[in-house]
Amino acid sequence: MTSPTKRSGRPQGPTGNRDRILAIARQHFAHRGFRGATLRAIAEEAGLDVALLAHYFGNKDGLLAATLQLPPGAAETFGAAVTGPLATQGARLTRAYFSMWEDQATREALLVLVRTALGSEAGTARMSELLAQHIGNLQRTAVLVNRTTGFTLAMSHLLGTALARHVLRVPGLTALDLEQLVATVSPMIQAYLERADT
Amino acid sequence: MTSPTKRSGRPQGPTGNRDRILAIARQHFAHRGFRGATLRAIAEEAGLDVALLAHYFGNKDGLLAATLQLPPGAAETFGAAVTGPLATQGARLTRAYFSMWEDQATREALLVLVRTALGSEAGTARMSELLAQHIGNLQRTAVLVNRTTGFTLAMSHLLGTALARHVLRVPGLTALDLEQLVATVSPMIQAYLERADT
Repeated sequence: MTSPTKRSGRPQGPTGNRDRILAIARQHFAHRGFRGATLRAIAEEAGLDVALLAHYFGNKDGLLAATLQLPPGAAETFGAAVTGPLATQGARLTRAYFSMWEDQATREALLVLVRTALGSEAGTARMSELLAQHIGNLQRTAVLVNRTTGFTLAMSHLLGTALARHVLRVPGLTALDLEQLVATVSPMIQAYLERADT
Repeated sequence: MTSPTKRSGRPQGPTGNRDRILAIARQHFAHRGFRGATLRAIAEEAGLDVALLAHYFGNKDGLLAATLQLPPGAAETFGAAVTGPLATQGARLTRAYFSMWEDQATREALLVLVRTALGSEAGTARMSELLAQHIGNLQRTAVLVNRTTGFTLAMSHLLGTALARHVLRVPGLTALDLEQLVATVSPMIQAYLERADT
């Protein structure tokens, strides 16, 4: 593996290459859509051979799937919030989720993820598969025994609120600070999380 | 999808042209993104001169703004649900909103609207303006006096749930029928609607 670039401050080696390809791919998918993005253009911007992208990700669909993962750190934050006593799960989940959107670096990654997942049919299909997998995992680890519908409604509520606040920037929501938002939304999330499937 | 003008059952004249251009534009914005869509390609598919599109909508941004309006009928349904006694506003709004998504014709229009609004930066910017206008109108007509944040949270919740059910097709939500969904979500929407701004 030759050094892909002479720029300083860039991560080096295979892992650095992979992360850099993903960062560039997210921008291409978000700005040009799934159909408009090409492995060749992404490889070119990364200063890498297109064969290396194929080696890492297979094809464009594989690359898309990789960009739709939660950004590093976010998955851990989220997992930690889900585990723990049910009585405070609503507040933990609400705070963890909105905090990811408050932080600029995570927000940009989430924004691109949302744009890619909702902006093209291919992105939506892959995101549906990933969500079904995540929920399946939570059921298997017994975090969500018999509470799948409530959990899904809670997460849908959090997603919609984040979209309204950070993407559509609806004034009624941008006016709240994080603490006000968590205090207002948490009780609803808690009520959904405590709901048993019927 | 060619020979649009010769098909019977198509609306004729200026209004028909305008609706047909909007329908085609929605598909182009949804599939190619704002950057990929062109007035020329949309005019070509409509079998109309590009000058006529410019006459109706000004430029591509004007055309985008027109596609982001609620589909005909949906705006009236929604307006009717918002007006009326506060005590049952949550159930009316929840049922009206999810019913729009249940109906195939409206759902497709809403899907394209969501994809366009969230899939490109230009679409998001125009949708933000439109939402701020809509909320401003509701405040002026006194439907939302001192309840803007609660209303915004209610609508964000409904949006997120519709995205999870009809776009991402999360199993925990697709398993519910409309009545179950309305019964589960309405109490939360009602609680938000009754919330006074602080």
